[in-house]
Amino acid sequence: MTGAAADTVRLTLDEVHALCADTLTGAGLGAAHAQAIARSITRAQVDECHSHSLYRLIGYVGSVRSGKAERHALPTLTRVTPAVLRVDAHRTFAPLAIETGVPALIEAAKTYGIAALAIRDCYHFSALWADIEPAAEAGLAAWCFTIGQSCVAPAGGTQPLLGTNPIAFGWPGPEGRPFLFDFATSAAARGEIELKRRAGEPIPPGWAVGPDGAPTTDPAQALAGALLPFGGHKGSALSMMVELIAGPLIGDLTSRQSMAVENGDGGPPLGGELFIAIDPAVFGAESLASRLADADELFALARQQPGVRLPSERRYAARERNREGVTLRAKLVAELRALSAPA
Amino acid sequence: MTGAAADTVRLTLDEVHALCADTLTGAGLGAAHAQAIARSITRAQVDECHSHSLYRLIGYVGSVRSGKAERHALPTLTRVTPAVLRVDAHRTFAPLAIETGVPALIEAAKTYGIAALAIRDCYHFSALWADIEPAAEAGLAAWCFTIGQSCVAPAGGTQPLLGTNPIAFGWPGPEGRPFLFDFATSAAARGEIELKRRAGEPIPPGWAVGPDGAPTTDPAQALAGALLPFGGHKGSALSMMVELIAGPLIGDLTSRQSMAVENGDGGPPLGGELFIAIDPAVFGAESLASRLADADELFALARQQPGVRLPSERRYAARERNREGVTLRAKLVAELRALSAPA
Repeated sequence: MTGAAADTVRLTLDEVHALCADTLTGAGLGAAHAQAIARSITRAQVDECHSHSLYRLIGYVGSVRSGKAERHALPTLTRVTPAVLRVDAHRTFAPLAIETGVPALIEAAKTYGIAALAIRDCYHFSALWADIEPAAEAGLAAWCFTIGQSCVAPAGGTQPLLGTNPIAFGWPGPEGRPFLFDFATSAAARGEIELKRRAGEPIPPGWAVGPDGAPTTDPAQALAGALLPFGGHKGSALSMMVELIAGPLIGDLTSRQSMAVENGDGGPPLGGELFIAIDPAVFGAESLASRLADADELFALARQQPGVRLPSERRYAARERNREGVTLRAKLVAELRALSAPA
Repeated sequence: MTGAAADTVRLTLDEVHALCADTLTGAGLGAAHAQAIARSITRAQVDECHSHSLYRLIGYVGSVRSGKAERHALPTLTRVTPAVLRVDAHRTFAPLAIETGVPALIEAAKTYGIAALAIRDCYHFSALWADIEPAAEAGLAAWCFTIGQSCVAPAGGTQPLLGTNPIAFGWPGPEGRPFLFDFATSAAARGEIELKRRAGEPIPPGWAVGPDGAPTTDPAQALAGALLPFGGHKGSALSMMVELIAGPLIGDLTSRQSMAVENGDGGPPLGGELFIAIDPAVFGAESLASRLADADELFALARQQPGVRLPSERRYAARERNREGVTLRAKLVAELRALSAPA
């Protein structure tokens, strides 16, 4: 299991999964949740989506130990209408709630052409692209939205109000591999600014304001002040939209309300997540192939321009490369293994 | 009817409506279409949404006269599933198709919690905020999306592929006046660049590249080259999303396909429009008031930051101001009146 270089370790995907699941059950989390989180983290690790991969275990374990997240409650699925589903997570982590709801979302979208799924009262810590990938792989156009903790000022303002409020969208193609994007509606994620601070580097202009409300390139000032939305008033409007539809629309918290109940254990914020899915076949099963071909042509025309990359390409390349296993820093693996030791 | 200053004219809203309707029927357009377009333009004029107000008549009349738009065909509404509606516009202008579909969309969303409406095969020239305002006023969260003619390069690229691909979202509040935004996913609209060119002013960096693919601040070079998405790769991903969901998803054209069938008459492009609506009441009628209050608090907290404005505030102020009528340039009104003279 130890790699050629002493400072790296090579793990198979089964070993990554086991490391996650064992660490979480060792910390006291129920097995069904531990398995779902392990699947979520393993997928992020394989895709080299480092913001949501193995190091996330530290936060998950933090929220198990602090008592913030329920350990054993199981999510419950309710069919609110034929086309609207709700999963109550009962203050557990999101992955099991998402696995509970998404198959029903897919089925409802295939039956009614469009469907929504609201995940309620969960601790969300996973990558949104992964949340909707199963729906896109099942042939659907799909979105999901979730809030964060308020650290972003609306455009024109200087005080934290909004979360980093990510948006994800997936489409079933090209070439059987969904076009998927997933981005924060803030100019940068808090993690990116934290990395700059540790590296002693300035942040680009336009990312943040300091506590005095003035634009800053000092990451410490930015973290003490407020991040800014991407794309000015347009990104700010999208961030407000996410607050509304992943919060009050579905009966869950805004980023500010989530922040107010946060205990600072390093784990995920409490909140909800909204999914929407549409079946392209509803607009004509007989024309579906030619319509998907029109979409494929759009992707091909974009990609043939030098400098253009589809949002999911880098992840798919990583997935291909890491089929047999991943190489990890030995120090991280040791740190993670230590997490499962009794507190 | 003539204002105090000789170069302006004062028109009541009924007169604005009549000017539109008479001009369009005079040009040969069927009365039902002329009335729907007149309602659409009058609303934009009252709200001082100048990009979609009276001067749009010139383009509409252009497309009537050129024969591009069908003059008399009536849109047909089909219930594809209980939650998905389709309106075939049969190559007529969008406003009547939208008026035909939106009441059914609202009803379906109130019955099933979520619904979609695809407008197919229409010439869309109106403001998206106006398209979804009735749904938001009816208590729904609602979106709409449409393509344009390809003049925008994907992020990283230099060749036109995408349209200006606007996105609109509406929410039923605060204070009975929907929070509505509506923006192009390009950094700027073509019209804004055209205005800069006429004024002999440079455009800001980041709006466009010239035909050589190099960034430009020369509006003429920009118009000959390609516009850029707002917000870099994030805005570009959203623009791709709009292409997919207002095009191949619903069986309609991409911006590039629309451009290929365009006759250059100055009127609207051929294409489709996708609406999605969700009823907040589906997630608990008893909790609805408190959830809408949570949303209102979010709006209030945003607005209390100096420098923050909600996207629709300026339009509502104009609507209030223009209740009794609007002041127009006499030259524009004369130009519009001349449109209805036989060609």
